[in-house]
Amino acid sequence: MLRMDYARRQKQFQQTLVNEELNGFAVTHPANLRYLCGYTGSNGLLLFLAGRGIFFTDGRYTEQAHAEIKGARVVIARGPLLPAAAKVIGKLRSAAIGFEADLTTVATATQMKELVHRRIEWKPISGLIMRQRLIKDADELKLIREAVRLGAKVYQQAAKFIRPGTREVEVAGKLEFAARQAGADGMSFETIVAAGKRGALPHGRASAQPIPRCGFVVVDSGVILRGYCSDMTRTMHVGQAGRVELGWYEAVLEAQLVGIRAVRPGVTAAQVDHATRSVLRKLKLDRYFTHSTGHGVGLEIHEPPRLGKNQMERLAPGMVVTIEPGIYIPGRGGIRIEDMVVVTESGCEVLTPVTKELVEVASS
Amino acid sequence: MLRMDYARRQKQFQQTLVNEELNGFAVTHPANLRYLCGYTGSNGLLLFLAGRGIFFTDGRYTEQAHAEIKGARVVIARGPLLPAAAKVIGKLRSAAIGFEADLTTVATATQMKELVHRRIEWKPISGLIMRQRLIKDADELKLIREAVRLGAKVYQQAAKFIRPGTREVEVAGKLEFAARQAGADGMSFETIVAAGKRGALPHGRASAQPIPRCGFVVVDSGVILRGYCSDMTRTMHVGQAGRVELGWYEAVLEAQLVGIRAVRPGVTAAQVDHATRSVLRKLKLDRYFTHSTGHGVGLEIHEPPRLGKNQMERLAPGMVVTIEPGIYIPGRGGIRIEDMVVVTESGCEVLTPVTKELVEVASS
Repeated sequence: MLRMDYARRQKQFQQTLVNEELNGFAVTHPANLRYLCGYTGSNGLLLFLAGRGIFFTDGRYTEQAHAEIKGARVVIARGPLLPAAAKVIGKLRSAAIGFEADLTTVATATQMKELVHRRIEWKPISGLIMRQRLIKDADELKLIREAVRLGAKVYQQAAKFIRPGTREVEVAGKLEFAARQAGADGMSFETIVAAGKRGALPHGRASAQPIPRCGFVVVDSGVILRGYCSDMTRTMHVGQAGRVELGWYEAVLEAQLVGIRAVRPGVTAAQVDHATRSVLRKLKLDRYFTHSTGHGVGLEIHEPPRLGKNQMERLAPGMVVTIEPGIYIPGRGGIRIEDMVVVTESGCEVLTPVTKELVEVASS
Repeated sequence: MLRMDYARRQKQFQQTLVNEELNGFAVTHPANLRYLCGYTGSNGLLLFLAGRGIFFTDGRYTEQAHAEIKGARVVIARGPLLPAAAKVIGKLRSAAIGFEADLTTVATATQMKELVHRRIEWKPISGLIMRQRLIKDADELKLIREAVRLGAKVYQQAAKFIRPGTREVEVAGKLEFAARQAGADGMSFETIVAAGKRGALPHGRASAQPIPRCGFVVVDSGVILRGYCSDMTRTMHVGQAGRVELGWYEAVLEAQLVGIRAVRPGVTAAQVDHATRSVLRKLKLDRYFTHSTGHGVGLEIHEPPRLGKNQMERLAPGMVVTIEPGIYIPGRGGIRIEDMVVVTESGCEVLTPVTKELVEVASS
């Protein structure tokens, strides 16, 4: 069993609070709770106060909280957690307490204000923990590698079922069942199987439509393993691909490889996006590339950085991102190729261990 | 194909805006978008302004939005949706525009404020659309019935695989695969299969642990069909249940039946909760009943009303709720029985078509 270094994570976060001139911070977002103290249940609130951690949950999670929580005292609240936490905070004469502005609703923030006296100031701050989560530590990289390997394995099992007449949902179902059998916690998002013309919808999910006798099939899937997400896309072709189709596929593959080569410490997210887009622009295919080049992945399937236009975030070692250019040609179909990569000191390492050569499936 | 009466829903919501003295309202929550205008994609914003609907999304959803949206003009924004909507709002000299306070983050609300001139007032309001969604219309009840029937069918298929030695995740996987095969959009929540001692964790999910030779197995599962959720729980027993175990099961079943009988228009949510709890209290089992009696279900798996202590919401015809008392005895196991019911003019109708007699599974 891998033991996460929660003490180090908490210490680093505590230093951030000092830098931000905060006396405390209230964490409720599940991925942030898992990252900071190991909790995997729902309805949790981790309060950092003057360097100490206090974790609140309800009676349903008593056993689980005591088993999982590291580096914080566990309090089982009778009733809602906010009033319980506010009671502790209210004992201070005055304090500035941060909270997750990008993950807390206006209604909750209003309630928080009402629960404490006037010398307690709630400070809305976005992305404070995410900024730390951006750089994956060694424990996380180990788990991400395992998740990616598992995701690749279940993709390869399910890809065998792609043939004309099979419904898209059936392929998705086989893939998801294989993931369960192989020990995944679940899927990191709803599996996309989009065949033929449906492939032109970049977020086509899987439908009851049968796979046609000829055309591309986009399969975009990911698993969750011990909390960490994988994400990969491959595009197959049913029947023999014509010269035009082969050209399209080669163009996307070239864009994807150029994107991977562009990843290294110090470049901006926008530069990587520009790299893939330029390949497609030269081939006059860029107008069919209607989304960003990629996104961060970790405890959540969509994390910063977003590899898109105008994104000035600079890549750094330990970031994990997808590289997934695609083209979607109305009435014809779609092609997308996606790997997960980890930024290294000198460039990046591709994590996804699956061939990107075009696989053709017999049409009968 | 069932056609939803979006015009009626929008008209009713428009009347609410008039009553609340609002000139407009911005909707972004996916379930609210689906309810009001039929949109099933992500990244949508529906702006009601002076009685007209304008729907914003991005280029990924162009085709889908035009195909799905009813009763609103579709605008494909280049870039984030909020600035696009704010531009339209900003043309008004002054206005009070409501937004979903319980579903909008503090960070987003701050941005919204910055995007409009000073005579536009954003008004945070919670639950305005949910209040309307609380009472299911005829179209919704039809879809909910279908979802519940499908959920029951896939449960019955998967229940056959419950036997000693089979891993919990395998049963969950079989169930989820059966749901896919039967045409479900997906699962309404992560399937719970909790056997033996693990059943004492009320939200135990499914683990890699094999089902033991003797003990209760709690299976809590639900599907999504055309957007609507189902939710049901049954508890089986592997091996012959002893006298004590039979007594526990009968107690939970009795509590559940009493709960169902308590449901009728005019009673409060708390009264239904009190009814189930009283049965278990008389048998000195109420301390093992550590959650609420039930919750609303519709486009989302957890909707109001919550059937719990101090919940003064009154039931009304057209509400759909679960009735799901349970007991969780540390070191021994858990029992929960859950149906979905619709409140009628005179009481309620149980929707879940599955026996509640204790099913015993051979232990070898």
